[in-house]
Amino acid sequence: MAQNPARRAALTDAAIDVLADQGARGLTFRAVDLRAGVPAGTASNYFANRDDLLHQTARHIHHRLTPDPVIIGELLRAPRDRALVTALMHDLVRRIDAERSGYLAMLELRLEATRRPEVRAQLTATVREQLEANIAYHLDEGFPGDRETVVTLYLAMTGLLVEHLTLPDVLGTEALPALVDTLVARTVPEA
Amino acid sequence: MAQNPARRAALTDAAIDVLADQGARGLTFRAVDLRAGVPAGTASNYFANRDDLLHQTARHIHHRLTPDPVIIGELLRAPRDRALVTALMHDLVRRIDAERSGYLAMLELRLEATRRPEVRAQLTATVREQLEANIAYHLDEGFPGDRETVVTLYLAMTGLLVEHLTLPDVLGTEALPALVDTLVARTVPEA
Repeated sequence: MAQNPARRAALTDAAIDVLADQGARGLTFRAVDLRAGVPAGTASNYFANRDDLLHQTARHIHHRLTPDPVIIGELLRAPRDRALVTALMHDLVRRIDAERSGYLAMLELRLEATRRPEVRAQLTATVREQLEANIAYHLDEGFPGDRETVVTLYLAMTGLLVEHLTLPDVLGTEALPALVDTLVARTVPEA
Repeated sequence: MAQNPARRAALTDAAIDVLADQGARGLTFRAVDLRAGVPAGTASNYFANRDDLLHQTARHIHHRLTPDPVIIGELLRAPRDRALVTALMHDLVRRIDAERSGYLAMLELRLEATRRPEVRAQLTATVREQLEANIAYHLDEGFPGDRETVVTLYLAMTGLLVEHLTLPDVLGTEALPALVDTLVARTVPEA
């Protein structure tokens, strides 16, 4: 396996764009090489097979969707109340809007997981790890609510993001900030 | 356009299976003819073009996901309280489990909507109409809560169904009924 980290990142970035633009069926080594503008055969030096490419792409998406520590550090100076949870959810929507391709690629990977058991096993581990980390963070930091609060908010935000990214006019882009406020107000205790 | 309604339904059923199995990129007239076991060229007699096929398939999915009036009639003898909303959400999960391909095909259509403005416009109208009908029904029937209650529950259930159908082991199939109870309890007032 070739080991140039910048090139590996460029290939997984290209894989995200191919997934978002063409769907999982369009994701081949050849399409990734083309998209990344590298010589034919490059991707096959970095990934053992297509499932390995899908797996590394999923991890790369999660990495790209990670919060900016500076923004989060600023936000976390505030008390651990519902208003802070609301601010964190607005930051999440902002990040997803900036990483639209990444989130759409993740939805493509979820659908590919229904067809390929290996993809499903690896993606399940990645998503579960992320959800458990969110729950532990919420409880350890003393945010209001319990485990079910985090799961309920996670599912409502998932629904919101799927709707917003795929059919934005159903909820209306202009109504989105108020809707985020509502989801938090309806699912998270005040303090 | 050919007008045999049973054959049209068989073709859109086949389109749903192709979407769920192969993704939007796999959906061609030829793939639909093959899947439906009809002579090559049949689908092109029933649909003006691929977007028309996608649109009619979306409407057919919504039709297949419609509640059974007998089951709903039974449920609706109960008072309009949170317990009844919970029972209706359990019925929704049951229907989606029985129409797994239909719901996965709908997710494929949502992703296709991000690539094709015509698909997006038509799917937006279908989904918005459905959501507005749900809201009106909830309020007219005197179920507890307001418009925001229905939207919050709709988004949380969307998140639950996407997670359950694509990566069922993240939440755990055995935990699903209790999770539906939790989502309703956390978003819908008691009565």
